[in-house]
Amino acid sequence: MAKIVILGGSFGGLTAAFELKRLLGNNADITVVSDDERFVFLPSLPWLIMGWRRPEDITLKVNEILRHRGIEFICEAAKQIIPEASKILTSEKEIPYDYLIISTGPYLSFEEIPGLGPEKGYTDCTFTLDHAARTGQTWKRILKNPGPMVLGSAQMVSCFGPSYELAFEMDAELRKRKMRHKVPIIYLTSEPYLGHMGVGGFGKSRRFIEDEFAERDIKPIVNQAIEEVTPEEIRLKDGTKIPFKLAMIAPPFKGVPAVAPLGNPRGFIPVDKNYRHTKHKNIFAVGVAMAIAPPEPTPVPVGVPKTGFMTVRMAKTAAATIAAEIKNEILPTPEELSVICLMDMGNTAAFMKAKPVLPPRQKTILKKAIWAKWMKLGFERYFLWKMKHGLSQWP
Amino acid sequence: MAKIVILGGSFGGLTAAFELKRLLGNNADITVVSDDERFVFLPSLPWLIMGWRRPEDITLKVNEILRHRGIEFICEAAKQIIPEASKILTSEKEIPYDYLIISTGPYLSFEEIPGLGPEKGYTDCTFTLDHAARTGQTWKRILKNPGPMVLGSAQMVSCFGPSYELAFEMDAELRKRKMRHKVPIIYLTSEPYLGHMGVGGFGKSRRFIEDEFAERDIKPIVNQAIEEVTPEEIRLKDGTKIPFKLAMIAPPFKGVPAVAPLGNPRGFIPVDKNYRHTKHKNIFAVGVAMAIAPPEPTPVPVGVPKTGFMTVRMAKTAAATIAAEIKNEILPTPEELSVICLMDMGNTAAFMKAKPVLPPRQKTILKKAIWAKWMKLGFERYFLWKMKHGLSQWP
Amino acid sequence: MAKIVILGGSFGGLTAAFELKRLLGNNADITVVSDDERFVFLPSLPWLIMGWRRPEDITLKVNEILRHRGIEFICEAAKQIIPEASKILTSEKEIPYDYLIISTGPYLSFEEIPGLGPEKGYTDCTFTLDHAARTGQTWKRILKNPGPMVLGSAQMVSCFGPSYELAFEMDAELRKRKMRHKVPIIYLTSEPYLGHMGVGGFGKSRRFIEDEFAERDIKPIVNQAIEEVTPEEIRLKDGTKIPFKLAMIAPPFKGVPAVAPLGNPRGFIPVDKNYRHTKHKNIFAVGVAMAIAPPEPTPVPVGVPKTGFMTVRMAKTAAATIAAEIKNEILPTPEELSVICLMDMGNTAAFMKAKPVLPPRQKTILKKAIWAKWMKLGFERYFLWKMKHGLSQWP
Repeated sequence: MAKIVILGGSFGGLTAAFELKRLLGNNADITVVSDDERFVFLPSLPWLIMGWRRPEDITLKVNEILRHRGIEFICEAAKQIIPEASKILTSEKEIPYDYLIISTGPYLSFEEIPGLGPEKGYTDCTFTLDHAARTGQTWKRILKNPGPMVLGSAQMVSCFGPSYELAFEMDAELRKRKMRHKVPIIYLTSEPYLGHMGVGGFGKSRRFIEDEFAERDIKPIVNQAIEEVTPEEIRLKDGTKIPFKLAMIAPPFKGVPAVAPLGNPRGFIPVDKNYRHTKHKNIFAVGVAMAIAPPEPTPVPVGVPKTGFMTVRMAKTAAATIAAEIKNEILPTPEELSVICLMDMGNTAAFMKAKPVLPPRQKTILKKAIWAKWMKLGFERYFLWKMKHGLSQWP
Repeated sequence: MAKIVILGGSFGGLTAAFELKRLLGNNADITVVSDDERFVFLPSLPWLIMGWRRPEDITLKVNEILRHRGIEFICEAAKQIIPEASKILTSEKEIPYDYLIISTGPYLSFEEIPGLGPEKGYTDCTFTLDHAARTGQTWKRILKNPGPMVLGSAQMVSCFGPSYELAFEMDAELRKRKMRHKVPIIYLTSEPYLGHMGVGGFGKSRRFIEDEFAERDIKPIVNQAIEEVTPEEIRLKDGTKIPFKLAMIAPPFKGVPAVAPLGNPRGFIPVDKNYRHTKHKNIFAVGVAMAIAPPEPTPVPVGVPKTGFMTVRMAKTAAATIAAEIKNEILPTPEELSVICLMDMGNTAAFMKAKPVLPPRQKTILKKAIWAKWMKLGFERYFLWKMKHGLSQWP
Repeated sequence: MAKIVILGGSFGGLTAAFELKRLLGNNADITVVSDDERFVFLPSLPWLIMGWRRPEDITLKVNEILRHRGIEFICEAAKQIIPEASKILTSEKEIPYDYLIISTGPYLSFEEIPGLGPEKGYTDCTFTLDHAARTGQTWKRILKNPGPMVLGSAQMVSCFGPSYELAFEMDAELRKRKMRHKVPIIYLTSEPYLGHMGVGGFGKSRRFIEDEFAERDIKPIVNQAIEEVTPEEIRLKDGTKIPFKLAMIAPPFKGVPAVAPLGNPRGFIPVDKNYRHTKHKNIFAVGVAMAIAPPEPTPVPVGVPKTGFMTVRMAKTAAATIAAEIKNEILPTPEELSVICLMDMGNTAAFMKAKPVLPPRQKTILKKAIWAKWMKLGFERYFLWKMKHGLSQWP
C-alpha cells in the first residue's frame, strides 16, 4: 500500500489529504505532518484584526477532522527531507514516504529587514493567527489613541491582498467612528504601481485602486524597498523616513527551512504542470511552497501570489496525479491555473477573476459590488464547513 | 466698555463685527477699519470678468451697512500695529484697542516676479474689483481679436479656485461663440498636479480636473515657477517660454504690510485654535491674514487657501472667543475647520466638501452637477442680502 | 480647354477627378495618372488582414469607373515633375498640364530602419493591399501556432489608426477563439502617449485607450523609436529588445520620389489654405502628399495623419479652387479642416470627431458605441458605391 505523506495542514495539505482519500480510499496510507494543530481560515485574518472575528470563528482542530477519516496526523515540525531516501525527519521521528506533497506555505523572513516584524522588530503582521491577534491589539490602541499608520508590503512579498483589504477596512471603520481625519494612512508597497499585486495587475486594477485610494485619502508610496525599521519610523532604501504609530508590513517570503534545500535560491520548489518536483519524481509541491516565475521583472522584486483558491486547485491536481500513478491510469493534464479573488473593502468588496493567473489572459473581470462582500462572507462559512466534513470538491 | 477694533471690511471683518454686535450688544465699542469703502463679493469676480456681473451687482457700501447698526467705520488704511501699546496707527489717527481682529486678506505681491501684474507688468489678475474690471476689458479684446491665453497661478499662491473657474468659464463661453479653436488655453500652475489646490487635492480632484481639461482641450503645465513676464511671453524658471495674448496669473500672496511684522516670514499671522495670535493675547487673525501650514511640502511652494466660507467660520470663532472672554464665560472650543466650495465650470459646476480642510479627512465630496451651479447663483444673492442686513449667522 | 492632371487614383485623386468633372463638365480635359489600376478602400485593410474581407470586396478597377465618364486614365508611374515646364514625365510619356493635383499618398520608407518591412525585412505592414494580404497570412499562422505579437508605429509615422484597430480586432478575435492567453500583445508606438495619434490626442483619448488596453491586457510601450529589426526581435533606440512572432509596424512616411523634390525635407508638399503649392501656383496637393505641421513637437517625431475623410475634403477644395479659377469666379475660402473617424475595436467601435483637426478645438467627440461599428460597416459600402458611380458629393 502506497504511503503518502503531506507536509502542511492548511488549504493545500487538507485538500490534498481529502482528495487522495476520496480517490484512493483505503488503498493508500495517508499522513499529514504539521506543527500547527489548527486549520486557520487565513483569508479571515484581516477580519480578526478588525475585531470582526474571534479566533474560534475561523479555526478547526486538524486532529478532529482527520483522524476519524482514516488519515493520520502527526503534529510535529518537519526538520529535514531526504529525497534520496524518501523520508522526512522530525525532531523525534523518521517518516518514510512513497509520495510526498509539500504544502508548507511561506517562511516569513522578517530577519531580512532590521526592525521588521512583531517578534524582534516594531511592525505588525497579518499572516498568522498569532500575529493577527497581536495586530488586533495594536489596532485597538490606535482607535483609542489615534496616529499615523503605514500598511503594505516589503520587497520579496508574494501576497498583497490582505494589506489592501486592511487599508480599505481600516479606512471604512475609522470613517464610521468619525475619526478618519486623526489617522493618516500611508500604503507602502514594493509593487511597481498600485494594483500590480505581483501579477502585473488585473485589467483596470491600477486605475481602480488609484482612484479608490484618492477618494479615501490613502496616500500611496510605491516601488520601494525597506532598509530598516526603527520604533518610530520606516526607512526606505531611497532614504525616505516614514513615521508610524501602527505599521503592518508584509515581510519577505521564503520557503520554510525544512523544504528550502529542495527549492530555488529563495527556497520555493520548482515543479512541472502537475506540481511534481522537476527533479524528484515522487515529491510534489503546491501553494506558496512552489515556485512561479513573475510575469515580468519589477524594479523592486516581488513574487506571484498563490491564493487559497489557487492552492486548492494545485492540491487537487497533485492528488489526482498521484492517484492516477498509483492506479496506473492516464495522468491528468491540468488546465492553466486561473484565480478568483474576493477583496474586502470594508463597506463593499471587489470581485476579481483572472484566467489564467498571469498575463496575457483570456479573461479578466474586476467588479466592485456589495454582492462581492456577501460572496466573501458566505464563502468563509462554506469553506470551513467543507473542511470540517472532509470534502475536497468544488471549488 | 471693551473697545474692539477690526482690521478689514470683507468676509472676515464684517462677519466678526456683526457677530460681536450680536453677542455683546451695546457692551462693546466695535470699530471696523478698512481702506476700501466697499464690500465686494469676491467669489463673483470671475463672473464680472466674463461680463456676467456689473460691479454694482456684487458690491455694498460698508459705511451704509455698519453705521446704523452702531458699528463705527473708519475708512483709512492702517499703517502700523503697536501690540505693546495696543494701538493702531493710520496716517492720521491713533486707534487704541482692547481686542484687535486682523482680517486684512492678502497682499498681492506682484513685485516678486518681474513683469507680473496689471500695474507694472503685463498680466491680468482676478483678486480685486479693479483688477477684475480691467481683466474684463482684456477678455473683451480677446473675443474680438482671439489669441493664446494663459491662466493660472504663480508660486506662493494660496487661492487656486478662481483660476480654475475662469479656465472653465472662458472655455465654455468660447465654445458658445464658436471660436474656441482660435484661442489656445494653457493652464499654468505652481501646484504639483492639477486639482491639488494647495491642500493635496480633494478626493478624486486630480483625475477629475485632468479629465475635464483633456476633454476641454485646456493644456496643463504644472509644478512650475515663473521667472519673469515680458509683454509677449511668460518665462518659467525651467527656461520654457509661453507666449500669450491674455495672461491671468495669480501673484504670490503675502500678509499686508501693516500686519506683516506680527506674522511669519511671509507676513501671515500664527494663531491658535481660536484664531488668537500665538504671542499677543488680545490680537486675533482670521482669513487669508492668518497662517496655515501646508499639509505637505511641494516642489514649488504653494499655500493653503482660505475661502470666504472658511473665513466666515474663523471670524465667528474669533468673535465668540472675545465675547466669552469679555463676559467671563467658558471659551468656545472650535471644531476643526472644514470647507464647502462651489466651483463654477461655465456650463455646469462642481460641489466640493472637505472635512476637515486638510488631509487626512473624515469626509470628502466632489460632485459635478448643474445643481451646484444653481447653488452658487443662489448663494451669491443670499450672502449679499445677509451682509446688507447685518446678519452673521448661517453659514 | 484647360488640361488638368491628377496624380494618384485613391481617395484624393478620384474625388478630385469627379468633382472637377461635375464643376467643369466638358470644359476641362481631366487625366488621372496612377501606377495602380485598382482603387482600394484602404480603411478596410485591417479587416482584410483579419480575414473578414476579400480583396475583391474592397477594390474597384479605376479604369472602369473613369473612362466612361470622360476622364482619361494613364496607368503608369510618374517619374518626375517639371514645374517650370508644367509637365510630368513617366518612363514612356511626357504629360503636360495646366493644373496639377498631387494626391500620391505616402512613400513607405522601410529602408530608414534596418530589418523593417515585408520585403527586405521581418515585419508586416497594413498600408497596401499586397502588404495586408501578406499580413493576413502571418495572422493565420499565429492562429495556428500562437506567440507574441508586436503592433504599432515606428518614428515619423503619420497614420496611427489602423494599428490601434488591429490591436483591438486581434484581441477580440483571440478572445473569441479562447486563445488570447497564448498571444502576448505589445503595442509599440512613437507617440508620446497612447491615444496621441499625431494630433495631441482627441479629448479623453489618452485615458480612453489606456483604460481599454489595461482591460484588454495589451501592453503599451510608448515614446520609442526603433533602431533595427532582426528576424526574432525589435531593437529600440534605448536598447530594449522586444521578441515577436508577428510584428506589424507602420514604417516612416515620406513623400513619393516623383513629387518629393517639390516638398519639404521629408517630401511633403507645402500648401496654402486652398491646397495650392506655396510656390508653384498651378500645382495643388491633397491628402498624405501635402504637409501639415504637427501641433506640438514630440520627443520622437510623429506626423499629423490625413484620413480618407480629410483627403476627400481637401480634394474637393482643390477642385473647387481650380474650377473657380478657370471659370473666373471668386475662389472658395475653405473652413478649417475637421475630421470624423470611426475606429473599429473588434467587438465594438469608437466614433471620433474633431473640429478642427488640430487643437485647440471648438468641438471634440469621443464615444465608444456599437452604433459606431454599424456606421463603419455602412460607410464602407456607401463609399465604394459612390466611387463606382462617380459621385464626389457628401461627404
